[in-house]
Amino acid sequence: MTKHAPARGVWPAASTPFRPDLSIDFELYIAHCRKLLEEGAHGLAALGTTSEANSLDFDERRNALEKLVAAGIPADKLLPGTGAPAIGDAVKLTKHAVELGCRGVLLLPPYYYKGVSDDGLFAFVTQVIKRVNDPRLSLYLYNFPQMSAIAWSPDLIGRLLKEFPEVIVGLKDSSGDVAYQNTLLERFPGFAVFPASEALLLAALKKGAAGCVSASANVNAGPISKLYNTWQSADVKGLNESVTAVRLVMQKFNAVAGVKAVLADRYKAPNWSITRPPLVPLTDAQAKELLGELKKVEAGALV
Amino acid sequence: MTKHAPARGVWPAASTPFRPDLSIDFELYIAHCRKLLEEGAHGLAALGTTSEANSLDFDERRNALEKLVAAGIPADKLLPGTGAPAIGDAVKLTKHAVELGCRGVLLLPPYYYKGVSDDGLFAFVTQVIKRVNDPRLSLYLYNFPQMSAIAWSPDLIGRLLKEFPEVIVGLKDSSGDVAYQNTLLERFPGFAVFPASEALLLAALKKGAAGCVSASANVNAGPISKLYNTWQSADVKGLNESVTAVRLVMQKFNAVAGVKAVLADRYKAPNWSITRPPLVPLTDAQAKELLGELKKVEAGALV
Repeated sequence: MTKHAPARGVWPAASTPFRPDLSIDFELYIAHCRKLLEEGAHGLAALGTTSEANSLDFDERRNALEKLVAAGIPADKLLPGTGAPAIGDAVKLTKHAVELGCRGVLLLPPYYYKGVSDDGLFAFVTQVIKRVNDPRLSLYLYNFPQMSAIAWSPDLIGRLLKEFPEVIVGLKDSSGDVAYQNTLLERFPGFAVFPASEALLLAALKKGAAGCVSASANVNAGPISKLYNTWQSADVKGLNESVTAVRLVMQKFNAVAGVKAVLADRYKAPNWSITRPPLVPLTDAQAKELLGELKKVEAGALV
Repeated sequence: MTKHAPARGVWPAASTPFRPDLSIDFELYIAHCRKLLEEGAHGLAALGTTSEANSLDFDERRNALEKLVAAGIPADKLLPGTGAPAIGDAVKLTKHAVELGCRGVLLLPPYYYKGVSDDGLFAFVTQVIKRVNDPRLSLYLYNFPQMSAIAWSPDLIGRLLKEFPEVIVGLKDSSGDVAYQNTLLERFPGFAVFPASEALLLAALKKGAAGCVSASANVNAGPISKLYNTWQSADVKGLNESVTAVRLVMQKFNAVAGVKAVLADRYKAPNWSITRPPLVPLTDAQAKELLGELKKVEAGALV
């Protein structure tokens, strides 16, 4: 197996469905992952924040990935989150993903300690890369300061790119900070930047972004993928507006629970709405409101 | 084995030493834990924040505890941290500690997701308790919002105490919020509240606190334990002042790295200063400043 080319395109942050006993419902999970790819998604950012990966235990995270590959999801279409606060856990998860043949891994910063220095983060990433010690490793930094309370600063990214030019391939940015994204795109040409929001995708593509890794792509993979595929065409404006409208509705609700409420409705599978504690599902009223608003913008898009 | 009585007294948040390759140095670790108990500590809050437990991987956390018990540290003098963002990991770590015979466990809230609800936290703790399913379990909540970004609200604690009166035994409060501690002491008589700072210990004992679980007790276990043992004596004022003075010096520096710098000096073991990324050791200048300031307050205490 050789090293994969950098990921590009639309990679939904695939949700993870649970049974009432909170175990992973692999039947629903595999069916959903397949459907996202059928709809046109270029790959799957499995086991990230939207996937409740940090609510899956260490064994479950590896098992989930193995089950997807065993079900025929091509490993090179998987970009799993493998971050953990401890170097050893991050190394084991990353090694496992590389050995399965995954396209790359999304690495959160070690998110327990707060106020840590760039030197400390540099040392953390260095340890992960050296201990994984596999030339096939493609590492995408996962920037989500609202959750991890730690950001990958542009200066730190520059240091990492200089030290590990073959390994550090890109970054998923969930901060929503367009200025930050633009700084990365300007300072590091060729670095694969993925905004988390398809509402930012068109503008980001014009500046050289690689695509997007989106939570709401769980419920709108087809149109977002089409937006990516046709962004240079003359008539992309309408598609961009409808994609953005759906995103703006989804953003009004908790990302994890909101996506699950929509999938429960779409798949006629109420279990889809189950979240793992500490997250809670939308209330019935919230779910109704979300579905109602979505219907409205989708009807608008068809006019 | 029956259920242990609630912990009381001074429980240092024992530091974890590393070798240059970042593996745990068990020789230094066991010697340090023994010394803390010899100096008078009532027990050890191992594998907490000061111990860099969240920088130890899943296997290391269990192995460290087993090594301490195998070395003759009485399990009923151990109150390890067993929190993790995923229910399954928290359950496995907690079960392991209970089965080893530990006095109880300190449970962090699931610290990845931010802005989670009390209902979600209640469901998380409920799942942990039900899945551990062991009548010997004594659970101490670990409140450290500066790190975990999530607090155990008094209302939530009241709900947990009502639902699990035999299991929820106490709380370690690292917030430094005296009003919060006093609220808990007033609302929940008999609930074992441990401030994290010995500077708050004397006042807290007067209000019914159970003792303290302190990072700086790594370097001052004897006097703090004496303060706890003699707090009702007439001449405790001087001791309280000297204990507080040491704490105030320690608080000027990063708690993990500062404690380690002092231990490296005390034990003449430079490796003690090694931290795991993302944490970094004090610079030489910082370590010199810390040691100098400590010497000054210790000299003052002897006058």
